[in-house]
Amino acid sequence: MENNFYIKEKGLLIVISGPSGAGKGTVCKELLSKYPNLAVSVSATTRDPRPGEVEGKNYYFITKENFLDMIGNDEFLEYAKVYDNYYGTPSQSVIDMMDEGIDVILEIDIQGAAQVRSNYPEGIYIFVVPPSFSELRKRITERGTESEEQLNKRMNCAYDEIRNAKNYSYIVINDEVHVAADKIASIITAEKCRSNRLESKIDEIIGRS
Amino acid sequence: MENNFYIKEKGLLIVISGPSGAGKGTVCKELLSKYPNLAVSVSATTRDPRPGEVEGKNYYFITKENFLDMIGNDEFLEYAKVYDNYYGTPSQSVIDMMDEGIDVILEIDIQGAAQVRSNYPEGIYIFVVPPSFSELRKRITERGTESEEQLNKRMNCAYDEIRNAKNYSYIVINDEVHVAADKIASIITAEKCRSNRLESKIDEIIGRS
Repeated sequence: MENNFYIKEKGLLIVISGPSGAGKGTVCKELLSKYPNLAVSVSATTRDPRPGEVEGKNYYFITKENFLDMIGNDEFLEYAKVYDNYYGTPSQSVIDMMDEGIDVILEIDIQGAAQVRSNYPEGIYIFVVPPSFSELRKRITERGTESEEQLNKRMNCAYDEIRNAKNYSYIVINDEVHVAADKIASIITAEKCRSNRLESKIDEIIGRS
Repeated sequence: MENNFYIKEKGLLIVISGPSGAGKGTVCKELLSKYPNLAVSVSATTRDPRPGEVEGKNYYFITKENFLDMIGNDEFLEYAKVYDNYYGTPSQSVIDMMDEGIDVILEIDIQGAAQVRSNYPEGIYIFVVPPSFSELRKRITERGTESEEQLNKRMNCAYDEIRNAKNYSYIVINDEVHVAADKIASIITAEKCRSNRLESKIDEIIGRS
C-alpha cells in the first residue's frame, strides 16, 4: 500500500455473495492469489474436523456450548445451522484483521450476506452472477455431480436468488474469472478513494491534524 | 469492452477537478494514454485560435453571438467568462460520445465542476489533490513561472479549494502520476459494476428482456 507513511487505514470488509454456481469461490481464490493485502475470514463450526483440516485456517473448531454462548453474546457477524452443525463468522477475528489494515473477504451465501449487512452495513457488498442462465446450467452440468432433478432445483433456486442483486452495491458478471477478480480489485481500490473514507487524510494534507 | 454482445452501455461522465497545482492535467494525460475507451470533452471558446490549434480538437471556435445564444438555450454543461472571452463545455458533444458508449473525461476547475454537478448529478466526481502542501509548493516552485507573491497567492487559493473535497464522491491523492491514473481507472471500472447501472443486465441474464 503506497500510503503507509500516513495514518494506518482500517481495512474494509468485502462481502462476496451470489447465486450458487456463479463461481464466487473461484473468483475469490483468483483475487487472493493476486492481491496480497487481502485475507479470507475463517468461520467457526461445531462439526468435527475432517482429515487435513487445520484449526484457525480452515475453521475454528468449537463446541456447541461455546457456539451457543457466542450467539447469546452477539459475537457472530452471521451464523447458520446446517443439519446438526452450526457455522458462523466470529466478528472479533474480522475486526482484528481490519484493525491491522487488512481487507477481509467474506465469501458467503445470500442468507449469510443479509445477516452480515444488518450487523455491518459499512461493508462492501458485491454480488457475483453467471453471464447467463444457459452458462450456469452448463457449469453445473460439467461438474457432473447433480442429477437432472437436482440440476433443475438448483437452476430454480439460482433464478430466485439472482433477484437479490439489487440489495448489493456492486454486481460482477463472472464471464471470465480473471476479469471478474480484477473488477473486484478495482471496486476495493475505488472504495478506498471514497471521500467519506478520506476525511482525515484531507486534514493531514491541509496540516490540520 | 468484454460485454459488447450485450446491449451497448452508455458511457459515463467523469469529472476530474482539484486545486490548482494538484497535477490533474498530467494525471488525465496518463489516464487517456492507457485506456482507449476514454475521450476528453472539447470546450467551445470565443477567443481566437492560436497557431497550431485545431477546430474540434483543441476547441470549438465560435463567435460571441453564437456562444451567448447557446447560453440562452441552456446548451452548456458549464461555462465561464475569462477576461473578454467565454469558455464552455457544450452538452451535446458530451452526450453524443456517451451515447456511443465512450466514457467522457472532463478536466475542469472547481467552479466549473460545481456547475456540471448541478446540470448532471449522475456524473462521477473525482477530486485530485497533492500529497501535501509542501509538495504542492515544491511543484509550483519547480515550474519557475511564479513570483514569491504569486506563489503565496496560489498556495492560499489551493488551501481554500481543497476544502471542496467533501463535495466529490472520490478523492485521488496524486503522489505518483501512474498510481493516481490507475486509481481513476479503477473508479471507472467500479462505477460500471454499480448495481443500479446493471439492472437491465440482470434482466437479460434472467431472460426477462
